[in-house]
Amino acid sequence: MACSKFEYVKKFEQDEHLLPGCYIVVRIDGRGFHRFAEKHDFQKPNDIQALTLMNKCAIEVMKETPDIMLAYGQSDEYSFVISRESILFQRRRSKIESMVVSQFSSAYVFHWASTMEGRTLQYPPGFDARAVCYPTTKTLLDYLSWRQVDCHINNLYNTTFWTMVEKGGISNRDAEEQLKGSLSVNKNEILFSDYGINYNDEPEMFKKGSVLVWEEGLKEVKRTPEGVSVRRNRRWVEVLHCDIVCIDFWVSRFPDLLQS
Amino acid sequence: MACSKFEYVKKFEQDEHLLPGCYIVVRIDGRGFHRFAEKHDFQKPNDIQALTLMNKCAIEVMKETPDIMLAYGQSDEYSFVISRESILFQRRRSKIESMVVSQFSSAYVFHWASTMEGRTLQYPPGFDARAVCYPTTKTLLDYLSWRQVDCHINNLYNTTFWTMVEKGGISNRDAEEQLKGSLSVNKNEILFSDYGINYNDEPEMFKKGSVLVWEEGLKEVKRTPEGVSVRRNRRWVEVLHCDIVCIDFWVSRFPDLLQS
Amino acid sequence: MACSKFEYVKKFEQDEHLLPGCYIVVRIDGRGFHRFAEKHDFQKPNDIQALTLMNKCAIEVMKETPDIMLAYGQSDEYSFVISRESILFQRRRSKIESMVVSQFSSAYVFHWASTMEGRTLQYPPGFDARAVCYPTTKTLLDYLSWRQVDCHINNLYNTTFWTMVEKGGISNRDAEEQLKGSLSVNKNEILFSDYGINYNDEPEMFKKGSVLVWEEGLKEVKRTPEGVSVRRNRRWVEVLHCDIVCIDFWVSRFPDLLQS
Amino acid sequence: MACSKFEYVKKFEQDEHLLPGCYIVVRIDGRGFHRFAEKHDFQKPNDIQALTLMNKCAIEVMKETPDIMLAYGQSDEYSFVISRESILFQRRRSKIESMVVSQFSSAYVFHWASTMEGRTLQYPPGFDARAVCYPTTKTLLDYLSWRQVDCHINNLYNTTFWTMVEKGGISNRDAEEQLKGSLSVNKNEILFSDYGINYNDEPEMFKKGSVLVWEEGLKEVKRTPEGVSVRRNRRWVEVLHCDIVCIDFWVSRFPDLLQS
Ligand SMILES: Nc1nc2c(ncn2[C@H]2C[C@H](O)[C@@H](COP(=O)(O)OP(=O)(O)OP(=O)(O)O)O2)c(=O)[nH]1
Ligand SMILES: Nc1nc2c(ncn2[C@H]2C[C@H](O)[C@@H](COP(=O)(O)OP(=O)(O)OP(=O)(O)O)O2)c(=O)[nH]1
Ligand SMILES: Nc1nc2c(ncn2[C@H]2C[C@H](O)[C@@H](COP(=O)(O)OP(=O)(O)OP(=O)(O)O)O2)c(=O)[nH]1
Ligand SMILES: Nc1nc2c(ncn2[C@H]2C[C@H](O)[C@@H](COP(=O)(O)OP(=O)(O)OP(=O)(O)O)O2)c(=O)[nH]1
Ligand SMILES: O=P(O)(O)OP(=O)(O)OP(=O)(O)O
Ligand SMILES: O=P(O)(O)OP(=O)(O)OP(=O)(O)O
Ligand SMILES: O=P(O)(O)OP(=O)(O)OP(=O)(O)O
Ligand SMILES: O=P(O)(O)OP(=O)(O)OP(=O)(O)O
Ligand SMILES: [Mg+2]
Ligand SMILES: [Mg+2]
Ligand SMILES: [Mg+2]
Ligand SMILES: [Mg+2]
Ligand SMILES: [Mg+2]
Ligand SMILES: [Mg+2]
Ligand SMILES: [Mg+2]
Ligand SMILES: [Mg+2]
Ligand SMILES: [Mg+2]
Ligand SMILES: [Mg+2]
Ligand SMILES: [Mg+2]
Ligand SMILES: [Mg+2]
Repeated sequence: MACSKFEYVKKFEQDEHLLPGCYIVVRIDGRGFHRFAEKHDFQKPNDIQALTLMNKCAIEVMKETPDIMLAYGQSDEYSFVISRESILFQRRRSKIESMVVSQFSSAYVFHWASTMEGRTLQYPPGFDARAVCYPTTKTLLDYLSWRQVDCHINNLYNTTFWTMVEKGGISNRDAEEQLKGSLSVNKNEILFSDYGINYNDEPEMFKKGSVLVWEEGLKEVKRTPEGVSVRRNRRWVEVLHCDIVCIDFWVSRFPDLLQS
Repeated sequence: MACSKFEYVKKFEQDEHLLPGCYIVVRIDGRGFHRFAEKHDFQKPNDIQALTLMNKCAIEVMKETPDIMLAYGQSDEYSFVISRESILFQRRRSKIESMVVSQFSSAYVFHWASTMEGRTLQYPPGFDARAVCYPTTKTLLDYLSWRQVDCHINNLYNTTFWTMVEKGGISNRDAEEQLKGSLSVNKNEILFSDYGINYNDEPEMFKKGSVLVWEEGLKEVKRTPEGVSVRRNRRWVEVLHCDIVCIDFWVSRFPDLLQS
Repeated sequence: MACSKFEYVKKFEQDEHLLPGCYIVVRIDGRGFHRFAEKHDFQKPNDIQALTLMNKCAIEVMKETPDIMLAYGQSDEYSFVISRESILFQRRRSKIESMVVSQFSSAYVFHWASTMEGRTLQYPPGFDARAVCYPTTKTLLDYLSWRQVDCHINNLYNTTFWTMVEKGGISNRDAEEQLKGSLSVNKNEILFSDYGINYNDEPEMFKKGSVLVWEEGLKEVKRTPEGVSVRRNRRWVEVLHCDIVCIDFWVSRFPDLLQS
Repeated sequence: MACSKFEYVKKFEQDEHLLPGCYIVVRIDGRGFHRFAEKHDFQKPNDIQALTLMNKCAIEVMKETPDIMLAYGQSDEYSFVISRESILFQRRRSKIESMVVSQFSSAYVFHWASTMEGRTLQYPPGFDARAVCYPTTKTLLDYLSWRQVDCHINNLYNTTFWTMVEKGGISNRDAEEQLKGSLSVNKNEILFSDYGINYNDEPEMFKKGSVLVWEEGLKEVKRTPEGVSVRRNRRWVEVLHCDIVCIDFWVSRFPDLLQS
């Protein structure tokens, strides 16, 4: 930037560097998505296209930032896990938070039309962002468990609630009343006994959220004029809908993490 | 959020609250806009449509956040000034930075098509963000002067450079060489003597950047069936291209600020 | 420090720089001085020697740090005001806080014997410290008013309480009960009517606390063998017990502050 | 504290909470101890009494703060290691740093007379303090290795230097010149060949510094009138001068740490 007698004001910038050696989780969350979902006719309780759009944006963020080792999304939120050793933007908090949320936001609008089939975007949505440091693998895994358990609890509730309302013709208020204080087992029971729905058969994306991981391997990059497949070693992002609370996922996907 | 044994991880969030009593400036800046401008055929050195798009986004951010008292933009950057007394998001740094940059980013894609006339957006752009506290009116004004002087210096340079290249048929390298170490007066002279361009006659938006301020007054909100204008008291954002280094702007627009 | 393969750990230090342009107030406060005062037979409610010792330590801190423009003390606490422009330790928070509190603490023990006449120090006392930024002169003055009003309120209460207990033979519990919810005027009345004490006549040090300011002028530095006084220009710390809530103090002592 | 219209200024306090789950190391270091050592005739390069005084103060700090699991001292510095789970002062940075350094400083003056045999304290010394978070056991151990290796390097240098000066009659400048760029092996050689000193025979306190750890066990607390020893379970601080770079110390003393 140009030099002038005013340049001293740059010294007022206070740049926090996130503690080295920790995992950095950046979580973004849609602002006022209750209203945003209403305005855009999101299916209740889960809109497959809307969730797919979230995944597309997260994949784009991951591709921009190879230091992201895993991402987890559900509802209007996404968590990006940056590796312990990363020196992305010298671990500057503002840079990391703002770059992730900005890329996600513009991708959201960018991919809207191709994903939300015929629905018109009424206004540009906002997301907030926060970076959190986790010093140990245990705390990182507990963080991700927290988000996936949250997904499960909310989804079971919402699935039951909207089934009661839409299939059972029960008023919102009455459904809320009946579910107050109910346990998981109760909600499973209502779904099964009253509506013949086995919660286990619900789509994995709804029950587990989406887990983005890097895959590496040979990928067909083109075919020769003769039709022979040309394969190269490539890295790409895979979308999973699996359990990440249980240790098995980590043992098979991130064995190194557990040793540290 | 749902409660579980994993919820303790929320305690790892470290929320900085920006010092009360200070002006908060949030500056956003396009990431890699050198390349972005190339890819989208931005006119050199100033693309009116691109600058207009920046202004549209900034206006949208201001409307979302009435605590922003003024905004200043030039090139691929925008600074938003939040008032000293603001308790926006309890002055939480991450919330403020992320909400501003997220809204700006999604607005940029949202308004692209209607502003950039026929140019297709190749990829979703990213912006970084930082919030900076300024404790006094003097330091705030010096901050804004810093940005406007930066605009002036860059614009005079770029205008001269591209005139030499495009009108004078001089190679990029030679133009750079000739301008190295030159003073403002030299560049004005080159423009005038060699190309008959009076730099003063360049568009104010290019020379001064854009200043967004709130206006208040009666605005026509509709017309009756009989054609009578119905006016209501309204607040709206006005785009100016004026000098904000000189004290006159502040005396006439923000007299209270100077007393504090 | 010596260089080794372990030196990377130094990068984990996170140094906060206090916002430029703000006043920095470092407040220290005795830890558990309720008990410390008991153990060392402090006179109730005010022990002149103990307060004098606090002042001595504060003067020593000021002399070590010329950037401290004023200090204010009462009870077991002291506030040091560092000027806006100071670059003491590059405004590093930890350095500033720790140096002030460390010097104060060791001075407290150092000067104990010469100040506390025959009382033996039972154990080394601890003080906590915090640095707080104040962006404007108004907030700084309000800070100091806060501390002086606190001194006044506590001292009026304590003076009345201990008079009732020690002169009136009232039990601690009964005195507390009678003073619950009482106003200043009530306490003045009790002191005057029941015990003939005019609160206004109490020592200024007790009512107002202690204000340390720099003085400058000619001071006798020695006398010649002939007994002629030799005077040099010197700077020293003066102890005042005056009102700092009212603007008059500031007008006469720090006129420049009010212009900024 | 008393309530007044000025109390709003308390909101300007910005309290950083150190990241949970990390070890917290508080390192204090004497300010200007080069001069302090000169003024108080510290023996060169190691003054046993001065080092013993440092240890006494550190023991006192540890006793005040049971969350300190280990401390390491050398020269004019001491590092205190607070356990990962500690919620001391809710992990507030300023509180932790200031309480440690304040207690250390006042203890230093308090125990001076009884430790420094006949030497008079000329002026109260100051120490700075900083708290640093270490997220993993590895980084913590590397931190401590860093300090112990620093101790070793400085002590070998200083021992050789002062031997050359005091025993060899070499000037300071010449000794410095001869040692410039020398390796450990060279210094050992000089000591051995020129002065018959085997560096390995130097006192462990000088070569390794001091390691403070908690011990637990039966301790005689009194004797009955009949002379029978009465023993109770007690916890006390033990001073060691052992190697903490090598893993053996940790395996035997802190086996749990290595599992985490
Ligand atoms: N119908 C529907 N709603 C959804 C879907 N995904 C998210 N939402 C809505 C439901 C929730 O009201 C909201 C997410 O909850 P939040 O706690 O993030 O609240 P919200 O974004 O309204 O407020 P916030 O600004 O984050 O505090 O988004 C979906 O697939 N379908
Ligand atoms: N042609 C053209 N280029 C523009 C216009 N506005 C901004 N740019 C380009 C010129 C500069 O290369 C760039 C802004 O400079 P920056 O210092 O922000 O660099 P850039 O964004 O490339 O990198 P960064 O990621 O911010 O470090 O944007 C415009 O109206 N026309
Ligand atoms: N008798 C007597 N007590 C005093 C004098 N100056 C201070 N104190 C005592 C009275 C209060 O109990 C105490 C100061 O109040 P604080 O709120 O600082 O409480 P304390 O230091 O006990 O706890 P803390 O560790 O600061 O939270 O010091 C004095 O001159 N005479
Ligand atoms: N003669 C002697 N000097 C010692 C002893 N222990 C420490 N010192 C002196 C030697 C060093 O000059 C000084 C410690 O080095 P530092 O790097 O901490 O320097 P210093 O405290 O002078 O400056 P600082 O304020 O910490 O930047 O203390 C000792 O036992 N004997
Ligand atoms: O991006 P630059 O180089 O114009 O300067 P800066 O914005 O101050 O640097 P950074 O983006 O790294 O904070
Ligand atoms: O937004 P909430 O209420 O789900 O919870 P939070 O995200 O922890 O709160 P905030 O957005 O205010 O940080
Ligand atoms: O004091 P030094 O030079 O040994 O090194 P440091 O302690 O890391 O420097 P500072 O005291 O300025 O933090
Ligand atoms: O110590 P108190 O209760 O007078 O009030 P405080 O000093 O603001 O509290 P803390 O010492 O916990 O910061
Ligand atoms: Mg939220
Ligand atoms: Mg939301
Ligand atoms: Mg949400
Ligand atoms: Mg930049
Ligand atoms: Mg840019
Ligand atoms: Mg820019
Ligand atoms: Mg306190
Ligand atoms: Mg106290
Ligand atoms: Mg107190
Ligand atoms: Mg140092
Ligand atoms: Mg030192
Ligand atoms: Mg040292």
